[in-house]
Amino acid sequence: MNSIIDIPSINKQLSSAVQTIIDNKTKPLGSLGLLEPLALQLALLQSQNCTAPCQKISASNPVMVIFAADHGIAAQGVSIANSDVTMQMVVNFINGGAAINCFCRANQIELYVVDAGMKKQLSYASKYLLKNRLGNGTEDFSEQAAMSEEQVQQGLIYGQQIVVELIAQGTDILLLGEMGIANTSSASALMAALTDHPVELCVGKGTGITAEQYAHKLKLIKRALAREPKDNNVIAILSRFGGFEIVQMVGAILQAARQQIPIVIDGFIVSVAALAAYRLAPQVIDYLIFAHQSQEQGHQLLLQEMSATPLLLLGLRLGEGTGAALALPLIQAACYFYNEMASFESAGITV
Amino acid sequence: MNSIIDIPSINKQLSSAVQTIIDNKTKPLGSLGLLEPLALQLALLQSQNCTAPCQKISASNPVMVIFAADHGIAAQGVSIANSDVTMQMVVNFINGGAAINCFCRANQIELYVVDAGMKKQLSYASKYLLKNRLGNGTEDFSEQAAMSEEQVQQGLIYGQQIVVELIAQGTDILLLGEMGIANTSSASALMAALTDHPVELCVGKGTGITAEQYAHKLKLIKRALAREPKDNNVIAILSRFGGFEIVQMVGAILQAARQQIPIVIDGFIVSVAALAAYRLAPQVIDYLIFAHQSQEQGHQLLLQEMSATPLLLLGLRLGEGTGAALALPLIQAACYFYNEMASFESAGITV
Repeated sequence: MNSIIDIPSINKQLSSAVQTIIDNKTKPLGSLGLLEPLALQLALLQSQNCTAPCQKISASNPVMVIFAADHGIAAQGVSIANSDVTMQMVVNFINGGAAINCFCRANQIELYVVDAGMKKQLSYASKYLLKNRLGNGTEDFSEQAAMSEEQVQQGLIYGQQIVVELIAQGTDILLLGEMGIANTSSASALMAALTDHPVELCVGKGTGITAEQYAHKLKLIKRALAREPKDNNVIAILSRFGGFEIVQMVGAILQAARQQIPIVIDGFIVSVAALAAYRLAPQVIDYLIFAHQSQEQGHQLLLQEMSATPLLLLGLRLGEGTGAALALPLIQAACYFYNEMASFESAGITV
Repeated sequence: MNSIIDIPSINKQLSSAVQTIIDNKTKPLGSLGLLEPLALQLALLQSQNCTAPCQKISASNPVMVIFAADHGIAAQGVSIANSDVTMQMVVNFINGGAAINCFCRANQIELYVVDAGMKKQLSYASKYLLKNRLGNGTEDFSEQAAMSEEQVQQGLIYGQQIVVELIAQGTDILLLGEMGIANTSSASALMAALTDHPVELCVGKGTGITAEQYAHKLKLIKRALAREPKDNNVIAILSRFGGFEIVQMVGAILQAARQQIPIVIDGFIVSVAALAAYRLAPQVIDYLIFAHQSQEQGHQLLLQEMSATPLLLLGLRLGEGTGAALALPLIQAACYFYNEMASFESAGITV
């Protein structure tokens, strides 16, 4: 894994030159709000190895990858649905009927689904279904480690390989989504292990469990955290709490950053993968675009942990990458204004 | 004007039937956040005269209309720019170099610009430039009424006529923008006159004036408000404080609602036009989609006045319709999920 943690820093020497380009556009200073730092970020990371800012920035070949896996802890009733629904939803993704399919079609985003380790293998072949199975679902992390460290390493490599392939095919912006019944439990445990926040602030209601289920979920996560040492070993932390989809997303994020393409981070689960990647390689942060803040308790704190400002606040709590897909037009709008907007001088405006 | 205030109520009898369609989609209840009430709103207003909810909703023929005009009060130095910039920016719109052009291209929105009464007439012909001049800029409303009530009535008719024409050509969603140096002054005075909020909360820094300019702007607006009676005569209020672009937007909003197409409301200035339309015909509210909350002080209160929840919070303070153009993909995404997403039954999902 050392090779994929070798991520180039972005070319911050060009910051003031890029900002001057943005400030000379025909608008009051800063009046495009969050789109301005977004354009700056894209321009810097697309001006690597240059002595002047790039003239054009691009996010025109977007690909969404949904990583799906099952979680042993689901058997404890911590979710509104049971593990069968993970595969049912993957079939729904392949058939084009889920929310993420609609939003990908709306915004012309190519969509791949990765079986990162569902309980059962899908007897199904599709160009858009990738099989990177790390097992038949993780172990129940409230009882024992979710997976071995070898599985973590293999998962990072799987995630890395997908991104290498996509970038070779022309992908210039990576959007991440996930599916896995009970994966907010995994993500909450990871957040508590990777930060100093009390576990109560890391655990939320997922897609909508009852107060009783919430108390049970919190108790199980506390038990798991109490069992394991509190250390900074990210690989070990991932092995303790899972899940297979999260580990592969960490690998995908690190590889995309290494190859200098932006990564659009969706909701709570993907943000936890981003935090793990950030802990492994802090310079990854420059490549991340945070799509939205979800309704999941803990997501706001998680975003703060990475000093992230999300683009959208729509009250989403679905996952699948839906927030990332919905944010893409804003990212593309930032490209359009950077690339095409007139300067005061070229437009003859006398402000 | 009575005819255009005759706006049909939307078909709320179908609310629960539409909500059932949304709730049967393959997602946890309510998990698409603000997109769900948005789909409900569109489905209701596109199911007028129906006994069952429409199967498909649409926002696929969007048109942005920017209303531009000058304001006599600009001579008092209440803005970061002088009145010449109104026309310079209109030329920029026609030449395709402004932020709004970039966002309209990014989201495939047709763009028209209306000269609603700039200081000078533009010696320029373009299919995309409409000349509906109510005068050579308004009078300085800090000294006297901005325009006559006859001009208000003519402005409402102009705005109405544009929308009749656009809908005849196939427009199914209207986006509004504006340009007019000093028009936040007009809008703030209108807000103070149309609501019970203290004027201090209605006046903001526009696109970025100094504290000294702000104090001067506030003083002038207070003087104007003190001169005029406090009443509920919306036509009279519009004549007192202007401006030509705001009055025409009121007419456009009323006509679009009358013909039952949704109207996407941009920032502070357009929201004031929406409030005036709402005061004239409260049922107009069902047709309004509030694109974003801008940085302008007062916009949040103005949105609350109409119980509006904006889709975007991007810190924009540019106007031109930029927030409306950026919100369109979210509106179209709501259509996609309503039209194309599988139900639990059709997808065989066992939640």
